[in-house]
Amino acid sequence: MATDRLTPDRILEATEDVLRRYGPAKATVTDVARALGVSHGSVYRHFRTKQALREAVIQRWLGRTEEVLAGVAEGPGGAGPQKLERWLRTLFAAKRHKAGDDPELFATYSVLLGEDGSQVVEEHLHVLTEQLRRIIEEGIRAGQFAEIHGGTAARAVFDATRRFHDPVFAPAWSHPGIEPEFEGVLALLLRGLRA
Amino acid sequence: MATDRLTPDRILEATEDVLRRYGPAKATVTDVARALGVSHGSVYRHFRTKQALREAVIQRWLGRTEEVLAGVAEGPGGAGPQKLERWLRTLFAAKRHKAGDDPELFATYSVLLGEDGSQVVEEHLHVLTEQLRRIIEEGIRAGQFAEIHGGTAARAVFDATRRFHDPVFAPAWSHPGIEPEFEGVLALLLRGLRA
Repeated sequence: MATDRLTPDRILEATEDVLRRYGPAKATVTDVARALGVSHGSVYRHFRTKQALREAVIQRWLGRTEEVLAGVAEGPGGAGPQKLERWLRTLFAAKRHKAGDDPELFATYSVLLGEDGSQVVEEHLHVLTEQLRRIIEEGIRAGQFAEIHGGTAARAVFDATRRFHDPVFAPAWSHPGIEPEFEGVLALLLRGLRA
Repeated sequence: MATDRLTPDRILEATEDVLRRYGPAKATVTDVARALGVSHGSVYRHFRTKQALREAVIQRWLGRTEEVLAGVAEGPGGAGPQKLERWLRTLFAAKRHKAGDDPELFATYSVLLGEDGSQVVEEHLHVLTEQLRRIIEEGIRAGQFAEIHGGTAARAVFDATRRFHDPVFAPAWSHPGIEPEFEGVLALLLRGLRA
């Protein structure tokens, strides 16, 4: 009966729990199957490899951050600098929160990052820079940002703020100096974009 | 007689060669002593630990980059944006060169970077941001940069360009996309600083 109701979502939920308990190095598909009370063959019917399962979990986990940020990007509130500032603060806070409060899934994400060309990571970076592009283009239409190329500017803002969202810098996010560093970069970028 | 002329400089020279040959994980003080034809006790008289020797080598290695950059920072040529642009291009080129053409010493540097609070790394970052500060303040005096706080702006420029000088990003420096990324960030920062 448990098998009948085995959906991809239930498997992903269980995998998140297993990853949180054992960490990315030790968690196995057998652990996931055991947590669900099914055979590991049943899990493999939905996700063909351990790698595919791990990627699907991280995709969902990153998707939650993308949704929160989309809410800022597409929501009301001042176009241009105000919205961009809110979006960047939300991104930094979300990444810090994931690194600090969800360390095992963050470590799993870092494993994918280390595997050059992971589709899931590429897609996440693409979603984020597209949100940035829309915010910048909205700001240009509102006359608050200079007449620049939205895609180029989005990429530049994303790269110039890597210190505050790229997982390689996670150890620095708990240092007290990180707050003034963020404020300094933010102010300089907003000056660079303004009309 | 070899021992009579054993100077710190000769030891550092030999250690660089040994690190290039064996890499940071395998190189030993005994290898250095053998290369110099002296006992390892003679080496330890100048550098009390393997760690101290390794730090001195990297300090000298980073010092060569600092000198080249100081030449740009203190040299003639247009103040402000022109000099800042030249300095940032020189920094990126120097780091890429070190990562690509001197991989074993670059790996040794990365080991120090991983050891939180290495004095040598801190000092290097301090020297670079001070050069940046002087360039920015010169640009402000020349009326080419806005009236901003030089130290804050220097730190912001340094942090916003980490993608192009922080060794954690070295694997990305050989990707073809890195050039337009650099140009995009550079243009945005120069816009942000201008008067």
